[in-house]
Amino acid sequence: MRVPFEQLYGELRRVLLKEGFTEDRAELSARLFAEASRDGFYTHGLNRFPTYLEYIRKGFIDIHAVPEKVEGMGAVERWDGRRGPGNINAYLSMRRAIELSRTYGMGCVAIKNTNHWMRAGSYGWQAAEAGCIGICWTNTLPNLVPWGAEERKIGNNPIVLAVPREEGPVILDIAMSQFSYGNLNAYSSRGEALPVAGGYDGEGRLTNDPDQILASGKLLPIGYWKGSGLSILLDLIAMMLSGGRSTYEVGLDEGEQAVSQVFLAFDTTALSDRNMLKEKLEHVIDDLHRSMPAQGHRDVRYPGEDTLRRRDDHMRNGIPVDPQIWQTVLDA
Amino acid sequence: MRVPFEQLYGELRRVLLKEGFTEDRAELSARLFAEASRDGFYTHGLNRFPTYLEYIRKGFIDIHAVPEKVEGMGAVERWDGRRGPGNINAYLSMRRAIELSRTYGMGCVAIKNTNHWMRAGSYGWQAAEAGCIGICWTNTLPNLVPWGAEERKIGNNPIVLAVPREEGPVILDIAMSQFSYGNLNAYSSRGEALPVAGGYDGEGRLTNDPDQILASGKLLPIGYWKGSGLSILLDLIAMMLSGGRSTYEVGLDEGEQAVSQVFLAFDTTALSDRNMLKEKLEHVIDDLHRSMPAQGHRDVRYPGEDTLRRRDDHMRNGIPVDPQIWQTVLDA
Repeated sequence: MRVPFEQLYGELRRVLLKEGFTEDRAELSARLFAEASRDGFYTHGLNRFPTYLEYIRKGFIDIHAVPEKVEGMGAVERWDGRRGPGNINAYLSMRRAIELSRTYGMGCVAIKNTNHWMRAGSYGWQAAEAGCIGICWTNTLPNLVPWGAEERKIGNNPIVLAVPREEGPVILDIAMSQFSYGNLNAYSSRGEALPVAGGYDGEGRLTNDPDQILASGKLLPIGYWKGSGLSILLDLIAMMLSGGRSTYEVGLDEGEQAVSQVFLAFDTTALSDRNMLKEKLEHVIDDLHRSMPAQGHRDVRYPGEDTLRRRDDHMRNGIPVDPQIWQTVLDA
Repeated sequence: MRVPFEQLYGELRRVLLKEGFTEDRAELSARLFAEASRDGFYTHGLNRFPTYLEYIRKGFIDIHAVPEKVEGMGAVERWDGRRGPGNINAYLSMRRAIELSRTYGMGCVAIKNTNHWMRAGSYGWQAAEAGCIGICWTNTLPNLVPWGAEERKIGNNPIVLAVPREEGPVILDIAMSQFSYGNLNAYSSRGEALPVAGGYDGEGRLTNDPDQILASGKLLPIGYWKGSGLSILLDLIAMMLSGGRSTYEVGLDEGEQAVSQVFLAFDTTALSDRNMLKEKLEHVIDDLHRSMPAQGHRDVRYPGEDTLRRRDDHMRNGIPVDPQIWQTVLDA
């Protein structure tokens, strides 16, 4: 089932207004959800909307909370998200980081007490569309097993790296787990094995079986010990820069509340060689596109390349929605 | 065979002075090499020294080149490394990023036309010892296969993330390949299989056999498609911020010359809650240490934890050296 972007956005906006959001905040939050689905990131678009409402009703998210500046040191600012809606807080944080970058060449906003930002890539696109290199990450609840351990202790801490480009930015949007729960469920429902090991079975052995991983809850970090280390460092840096909670502290609470995030923007619009950089960027992309594909692959693409194709299809033919979830929104 | 730190440092310094280095630069470069071996990073310590001399003699490294500031925008500065010694340039770059962070809360130095920085972690330690969070990365020649490709196109682009801590910083120092060439050679010489897939065989199939990977030259990025994407983004950001060469451009030349690097420092010494942050950091580390170890693991450690133990052992009992390489230094 497919629905037009305007209808998806309009219904989400309507529900948020009914929840009590002010008009501008309902529009921003609804737009970020609708754009996630529009770009094919369904798990952090419409599909996540019911959990968002649930978190609001449980009091985990304060829909009226506006982030507050706690401390500023030139290019770096620390903000308190005051447990407000995660996508609104994240958007405002990246907007402020971009503003700081116009003055200082780069800007950093670290925010504590914020909530799940939904689609990580949203804030990479935001930076890139402002002509900035954007880097941002969040910590999460402890949902991954550190290298050498038997228990979940570290977060999958999604990170985004974005480079502006007129024909469509280069954007990497990844979590530290090799597969997301969404991916594991998709393989499981198709009855397929994962193409590579994705986690541990009940005996602590690596496995490609999505059902065994879903049962154990032990997802593998990318690159084994390397992704485990990356997750720990991203968490510690987010905690220190923001003064907020670590993954360990997030795990002491119910659900996933009051996380810590970092937003970096580097202004590329003022660089003296920006025209040459555009050419050099195309050389890298052309070289990637010229790669001989490996067996089982049709072509080699740059990170984010598929997003524009999906967006184009969805804007012309409608955005695929889960009929049940869509109905709950229509009924809300 | 083991030699005392002072002897290792002294001999390296002597050789560099004989090569024509000025005294302060010979001391800095020799110290960085000796400290790499002291901390157990032999492949980028003494073992890399002969290649360093070879690159100097081939004219790839200009021992007298001093980095030059090209452009400054507040907290961000772009420097030209002028093909000088990579470890000296990297040290000076991180030093400048730390200085900038005292004024702006954070500092960024992007340097072009520099050379292999040897042990990546050196500059993470440098930042942490100055009370800064440090993040730095370099691009390299194309030595990894992008996801979906048959050919080497992307770099293993080492990255360092460092968090200061009085009892010893938390430092991650990783390349984007699952295993380094040094690791593959070590497994091969012991006749052991890799614990997890590390690359492709001649037929493009994933394999745990170090010899097949060494023969094909096709090393796997961490996390398959995810590390491939990370490598591409780190390269593009280093190229854009520095104005220097991309991995693609580095690959057009002989050896690995004139690479691009980024150094970020965030000053934590001025944060109002720095004492609370120290406590929160210990809670994370204590929680990691409390992990139930998985089968085949004795304990769970934080990134960088082993370094201090090795350093302590080597300072008391001498630094392990390869006798042949050590002899070439003594004879030089």
